[in-house]
Amino acid sequence: MSEDLDARAADAQTSDRARSLLDIGARIFAEKGYEATSMRDISSAAGVSKALLYHHFASKEDIYARISFSATEKLYSFVEERIPAEGSAAEKVRAFMVAATTFFSDHRSAWIAASNAFWSDPDRHRLETRIARRRQFERRLRDLIREGVENGEFNAVDPAMAGRLILSGINWMHRWYDPEKGLTAEEIVNQYADILLGGLHKR
Amino acid sequence: MSEDLDARAADAQTSDRARSLLDIGARIFAEKGYEATSMRDISSAAGVSKALLYHHFASKEDIYARISFSATEKLYSFVEERIPAEGSAAEKVRAFMVAATTFFSDHRSAWIAASNAFWSDPDRHRLETRIARRRQFERRLRDLIREGVENGEFNAVDPAMAGRLILSGINWMHRWYDPEKGLTAEEIVNQYADILLGGLHKR
Repeated sequence: MSEDLDARAADAQTSDRARSLLDIGARIFAEKGYEATSMRDISSAAGVSKALLYHHFASKEDIYARISFSATEKLYSFVEERIPAEGSAAEKVRAFMVAATTFFSDHRSAWIAASNAFWSDPDRHRLETRIARRRQFERRLRDLIREGVENGEFNAVDPAMAGRLILSGINWMHRWYDPEKGLTAEEIVNQYADILLGGLHKR
Repeated sequence: MSEDLDARAADAQTSDRARSLLDIGARIFAEKGYEATSMRDISSAAGVSKALLYHHFASKEDIYARISFSATEKLYSFVEERIPAEGSAAEKVRAFMVAATTFFSDHRSAWIAASNAFWSDPDRHRLETRIARRRQFERRLRDLIREGVENGEFNAVDPAMAGRLILSGINWMHRWYDPEKGLTAEEIVNQYADILLGGLHKR
């Protein structure tokens, strides 16, 4: 194996390790809250030394910010792939809602982390990128609502306001939703969509 | 003045002072976040010594929990007084939404504090009382929705789920709403109510 390949293999290994530490960190942060979580909690849960944890990450804040960043980065493309190219605006808005909820539910810990500390990141550039991605995500939903208003499917609502209402339902879910009991996240968001799209749709 | 009256006058003064410190605390917590706020920040903003602040409150966590407690205690009666005894379920649900939003907007700092640290309070009894009040508030909304389902005004939605969707819109507002620009909180919640009640109402 050439030195170059060795280096690449080492890199890949490092980033697997880092990814696994981030997953564990996300779970601990979601369980205990940001403030109550220490670097020691994360290293213990991962079964590694604190020194190794500090080798990968500068601080607790750094871990938290990376978790949030990664979740926001993936969200947009995950949702985009699930919006049908053809169909009514109502179908597209519902697909957006179901996809976003599925993503948040599948990445529950990371999402709670991202949601609780949205504005804090020691890396200014990373924070700005994350805010830009989030805006892109929100804009996509507004555009779908505007499509429905313009083609006469929906009432003449303000797309920005209707979009915020829809996202509130999805964003707030992690505050009360228990994946262990009751309806699935997808069933819940479909009930939300019935009410919201019923309200948007022209009579 | 009798000794008894002296003592009561001193008590009243103390609690005025404590209330004013809590108001200032709420503002600082809302501006800086819980973690970044120190007892020194609060005492500086209030123009009092740290010793005086500690005379009234055991810790930063104690101040935060008292702010949340007081906001939750007042919320229920504020909203209850604004729900009309007569009228359609839709009118009552809208009145609930407008009242809750007005309350949150008028007590913005306290509400952000309560929302961000809902589950933490060093005083277990106070925390339980707060959770009970919050449940009472949520149950009131569900009962209004159930009234509309039972009298045939609304579609056969699950009142718990519809209630959560409505509260999500209201609860999430503090994350993006800027009282300095754009629509008022009351205008926004009326747009939300148009969509949500449109979706609940039988066609």
